[in-house]
Amino acid sequence: MSVTGPAGFVAAGGAAGIKAGGAPDLAIVATADGRPVPAVGVFTTNLAPAAPVLVSREHLAASGGLAAGVVLTSGNANAANGAAGKAAALQLCELVAEELGAVPEQVLVCQTGLIGVPFPIEVVSKSVGRVAGTRGPDESDASAAAHAILTTDTVAKQALVAGPGFSVGAMAKGAAMLAPDMATMLAVVTTDAQVGPADLRAALVDAVGPSFNSLCIDGCTSTNDTVLVLASGLAGPPPAGCFEDALGEVCASLALQMAEDAEGATKVVRIVVSGAATDGEAHRAARKVAESQLVKCSFNGEDPYWGRVLSELGTAGVALNPDLVRISYGGVTVCEGGIAAGHDEHAVRVHMAGRHLELRCELGLGEGSGAVVTTDLGYGYIDENRTTS
Amino acid sequence: MSVTGPAGFVAAGGAAGIKAGGAPDLAIVATADGRPVPAVGVFTTNLAPAAPVLVSREHLAASGGLAAGVVLTSGNANAANGAAGKAAALQLCELVAEELGAVPEQVLVCQTGLIGVPFPIEVVSKSVGRVAGTRGPDESDASAAAHAILTTDTVAKQALVAGPGFSVGAMAKGAAMLAPDMATMLAVVTTDAQVGPADLRAALVDAVGPSFNSLCIDGCTSTNDTVLVLASGLAGPPPAGCFEDALGEVCASLALQMAEDAEGATKVVRIVVSGAATDGEAHRAARKVAESQLVKCSFNGEDPYWGRVLSELGTAGVALNPDLVRISYGGVTVCEGGIAAGHDEHAVRVHMAGRHLELRCELGLGEGSGAVVTTDLGYGYIDENRTTS
Repeated sequence: MSVTGPAGFVAAGGAAGIKAGGAPDLAIVATADGRPVPAVGVFTTNLAPAAPVLVSREHLAASGGLAAGVVLTSGNANAANGAAGKAAALQLCELVAEELGAVPEQVLVCQTGLIGVPFPIEVVSKSVGRVAGTRGPDESDASAAAHAILTTDTVAKQALVAGPGFSVGAMAKGAAMLAPDMATMLAVVTTDAQVGPADLRAALVDAVGPSFNSLCIDGCTSTNDTVLVLASGLAGPPPAGCFEDALGEVCASLALQMAEDAEGATKVVRIVVSGAATDGEAHRAARKVAESQLVKCSFNGEDPYWGRVLSELGTAGVALNPDLVRISYGGVTVCEGGIAAGHDEHAVRVHMAGRHLELRCELGLGEGSGAVVTTDLGYGYIDENRTTS
Repeated sequence: MSVTGPAGFVAAGGAAGIKAGGAPDLAIVATADGRPVPAVGVFTTNLAPAAPVLVSREHLAASGGLAAGVVLTSGNANAANGAAGKAAALQLCELVAEELGAVPEQVLVCQTGLIGVPFPIEVVSKSVGRVAGTRGPDESDASAAAHAILTTDTVAKQALVAGPGFSVGAMAKGAAMLAPDMATMLAVVTTDAQVGPADLRAALVDAVGPSFNSLCIDGCTSTNDTVLVLASGLAGPPPAGCFEDALGEVCASLALQMAEDAEGATKVVRIVVSGAATDGEAHRAARKVAESQLVKCSFNGEDPYWGRVLSELGTAGVALNPDLVRISYGGVTVCEGGIAAGHDEHAVRVHMAGRHLELRCELGLGEGSGAVVTTDLGYGYIDENRTTS
């Protein structure tokens, strides 16, 4: 069900002519009755944000944190398109607002695809009414929306978590350019829990930290990253803490689905750093290891080359005493006290041959811990990214 | 001639049993008469430095900045080997000191290769005397030394620059794990110019900035990076500024040779950022672009995808107004005012098809400029780095 699971939401997906060959590229998620509901968003920190990021931020500010719907397109990021790009993003909101019976400031917009290519608003505008007209509350409607936002993703990414008396649903896309502070990832979350704007924002900020912001595919932070949450309130107020837990679970699920579907990846690797001076330093160290081309290549080659891991820890900008470092793959310690540890080579080989790897680094300095999910670097990533054609 | 070009130096290279199959893996560069001369070094900033880095630092401090020679090995980094690693590095210095008639504190040591593998000092110690006995002042001696320090390098890297009345010679290795603050790169520079320790240090610091520290292959900073300079003084004092110029030229040549020989690279790309708020911000922005997996893949695919470049500039942590950005490949502007610029596509295609690319980013904010040399990311890098076996 995903975004139409929570009461009060409808969705649609269809083709609007952005992608070649009539592939679906336009999605809408909206309240069933066009009524604006509390909405919050977190956006990319990139200083060259795409037009939809600018427009969604402005609309949330102008509407006082209310939204009746979200329009999403794929195949063109509408980034680096200047004033024309912003006008196109605004026009998308206006067209959808008209369909919903809302005002444009109550519609948010997300776009993903190539940067710097003029957005074909003339073509797309002709299809908005048709796609919007197909919106509905069924599982197939949510699925159509989830498929229409994909780019190099190979599968749709959806989640639905039931809490006591309410639910949280979501869809997302994201396959590369993934880094802390999110990157080329879009996510729309709906809930029927009755949560005020301040609590909604606090819950979202807490949820993105250990999920989207702990995902690092290639260290690139995109121009378009957006996570939006809309709360219809139809299920009434949730028991204390329950909404936060459900939102956290949904975001974690989407982040893992993104890692599983990362461009060209053959391994999903969880890197855990413990014993750091602070949680922040642990997270930074885990991220440095996760972003290392050399370490990522060794995951691809199933080589437990912990020397590179230690070297990355040494340049992560965190406190380190190499003589205290312990490193393990899949629970088997390969480095102890900063030097090679005799270990069961067969056990490590079996672990490295799997699709899901775990690399743990204990720094022995303090109580700080943090984790990042990443992938390997192999031919597949290069094949996906060497040309845009 | 390289390191034996300047008067007063001898060199040797041979096999000591570290690498399989009898490949050369032990080099010595020393003063011809074993006399200690002014010497300075710059070392990796990695907090998990290898044993040879620890020992060389200590020896320079203990000797008051004097060295009679340098011993270098390849095939094993002697990093993450704890106390045994440090003892092995010390023993190498002792053995070479004996051959030179110097004290151990007057011998420096550089090592490169795999991290975390115990160094076979028992085996190597048997060959030090034999290799040292072959040392001489000829071009073939310098060449033997330059070849004995290579790892995944495919060619030896040497340079010799003549100044008025003096010369500067050098050899280096480095093929990956190259990043600002140097990385898996070793360089030994000799000169017969008479330069005092303070001037020697100042000149070296100035020389590494625009050369080794402006080279970024994969963003990884190794445990072993070392650049050493030994000055015999036999040519007397050089005219003001001339030694600094020659040293800068030598370092720039070695850095370019390293980029040309980078693991698996098919392109050498010079990234120039101008119009930044400060030189430091320009350099940081250039480095962020150079470290981007996505941008490096597009070099490999000969795709002038400037959108990714703009996106990286937006996350470089420097002041940016995307509306002022101009981006060009090979002198052809493809982005102006932050949006696509009509351009001669054939000219860009021809440029991208070459081996040497130039990417320029003008930020339009100030007078700051900086440049970084990098390479593309393709199958070759992955082939080199996915396993160590």
